[in-house]
This record gives sequence, C-alpha cells and structure tokens, in this order.
Amino acid sequence: MSRVTCDLTISLDGFVAGPNQSLEEPLGAGGKNLHRWQFEEPEANAAERAGILAAGAYIMGRNMFAGPGAWAEEWRGWWGEEPPYHAPVFVLTHSPRRPLLMQGGTTFNFVSDGIESALAQAREAAGSKDVAIAGGAQTARQYLSAGLVDELRLHIAPVVLGAGERLLDGVANLKLVPTEVGGTRLVTHVRYQVVR
Amino acid sequence: MSRVTCDLTISLDGFVAGPNQSLEEPLGAGGKNLHRWQFEEPEANAAERAGILAAGAYIMGRNMFAGPGAWAEEWRGWWGEEPPYHAPVFVLTHSPRRPLLMQGGTTFNFVSDGIESALAQAREAAGSKDVAIAGGAQTARQYLSAGLVDELRLHIAPVVLGAGERLLDGVANLKLVPTEVGGTRLVTHVRYQVVR
Repeated sequence: MSRVTCDLTISLDGFVAGPNQSLEEPLGAGGKNLHRWQFEEPEANAAERAGILAAGAYIMGRNMFAGPGAWAEEWRGWWGEEPPYHAPVFVLTHSPRRPLLMQGGTTFNFVSDGIESALAQAREAAGSKDVAIAGGAQTARQYLSAGLVDELRLHIAPVVLGAGERLLDGVANLKLVPTEVGGTRLVTHVRYQVVR
Repeated sequence: MSRVTCDLTISLDGFVAGPNQSLEEPLGAGGKNLHRWQFEEPEANAAERAGILAAGAYIMGRNMFAGPGAWAEEWRGWWGEEPPYHAPVFVLTHSPRRPLLMQGGTTFNFVSDGIESALAQAREAAGSKDVAIAGGAQTARQYLSAGLVDELRLHIAPVVLGAGERLLDGVANLKLVPTEVGGTRLVTHVRYQVVR
C-alpha cells in the first residue's frame, strides 16, 4: 500500500514560521530563512526537493491554499495557473466548493468532511504512489496526532526564530525512528519512520 | 587556540528535560528517553560519547553540579568519588567554596564572578585542548547568548516530550552552520559551527 509522507522545514528551535505572519510575510519574521536550502542550493538538495513533489496525491489545509486572507470563490491558490503538484490535491475546508482544474494535471478538490475522508480520497487518487501531507503545520499536526502519517521528513534549518508557530506543539504519543540523515550547510535532512 | 564546545541532547521538540523535574526524576517526565542512545547504543555512538569527555576543562552550572536540592558544603557532585571528567571542572555558583579534589584528576573549582571569568580560567587550565560547556541548559544558553561557544553539538533524540525546559528559548542572534551529521535509530547527531 502507498505510504503517507509529510515534508516540513523547521527551525532549530522547532518553528515552521516566525512570529507576525501576514499577507506580506506569510512565513512571519525571519521565516524566509528557513527555506534558503531550497532556493540557494537547489542542486545539492535535489533529491529532497524532488521527494517533496513525488507523491501521487496531496492533502493541504485551507490556510496553505488560501493564506491568512479571506476565502474567495475566485481564489485559485498561490501557485499560478500551473501548480507544481501535477496531481490531485485535496484541500481541507469548511466551505465546500467545486473542484478546480489547473494546468499540468493539478486538480484542487475541496473536502469538508474531515481529515480521514480527505485521506481516503487521496489514497484512491494516488494509486500505488504515496500520499503527501503538503502542509501547513496545523494540518500536519492533525495527521500526526491521528497516527495517519508513515514517514515524517524534517528539513531542519540552522536558524533560531525565537517565536512563531511550532510544528510539534500538542502532538502527543508520537514515536519516531530516524532512518536517514544528510544535509548541507543550510539544512539537515532527517527521515523519520512513525512507529505505531 | 582551543575551541569552546557544547554537547547537548535534546528532544525533537527542543527540550533538554521533560516537565516536573525533581530529585527522583532530575530529567523530568520522559526525560530519560532522551539519553537512550548513550546507554543502549554505546558502541554505535562511541565517537560522540568520547567527544563529550574529550575536553581539557569543563564548565557547568550550579544546578548540574548540585541538582535541584539544597546546596550543601559537603556535597561532592553526582558522579561518585571518580567523576568521568578527569580534568578541571569550573562550577558557576554564587556561593564561593574551596576547590574539591576528586579521584582520577577531576577538580571541581567554584567560580562566583561570572561566566567570562569561568571561561578564562577554563581556557588557562585546558591548554591546547578544548573547553566544554558541560551543562545544564541554562548555562549553555548563557554561553550561547554571549557568543562564547564555537561548536554546538546537538544530539537530537527522536522523542517528543511536549513540555519541559527548552534549550534555545531566549537565545537570540545565533548563527549556525551544520558541518557534520550522522546518527542511529535512537539519535541524530549534528555539529554546528557558531558563526560570528
């Protein structure tokens, strides 16, 4: 059966975003520094970057799709007309909406009956490929807390943010085994198998 | 010149100890799990364990020497008559006290005039060897915040404690570059060079 994976970039002090997130600074103060490894070292981190987009279907939270702004029927996501997913994406929301077909194979499907329903739909869509929890942190926490993630891939940036949104706050009973480590001067990659 | 190093084992959510530290549970609830890598996999982690005790002099906080209990003149530390340091140890305290000579080359020296004085004395004692900040977390934070640490070696246990004492809370302006990563199923080792 396909696995459920979750890639997240966090600071050394455990934040996925800095304080004072806004439309201008969606990652909060200092939060952009978390992702330097993706933009400044694309080749050295090619395998990890590819891994983030290797799934057969994706699940994301409402805030990742729409940001902190108001939900508008005409909103088509942050990624332009050809999002990088090239696969079905299931967006958790309380506001049902018709699917949104984008260019390049990405379809945004809106799921309003819970995380388990979204996962069932994503599994069906992914076939033999993995299902990726694409974010944000709140959605990742929900799936981790429910014991529905098989592999957590943390990309630990050597950055101390001091405040912001913590990935693991409130996630209890998580048993992890690191299975692979690596990295560069801008990031440490650790793959964790979630033990049940 | 010799470097200043600091080894610390932390949970994946950034804690050096769990909640409710006490004499019975000095590492707090769940805190013992942080150190499984040292006790259950001594050979696989031999290099990292040796590195913790390779310095020419050590600095530790009062709480690491005496624990949360009362400070008593007759207290000789947690390590028995032959502590594992085999070198001068400088203990930060507000209560001056005569040096304590232990077996095997460890001497506990009590320093009451601040962290920079302790470092100067430790450097002098270490000669060409490194000076290690032995802990606890509060002492590590003081030296990190003051920009006095050259290499931070984190041993990240795949454990989520949920609450307790966080290593990096309040440490600002810390610039780090990971220089080496490795690990086992019980720990991920990351060496960070502190950039000034």
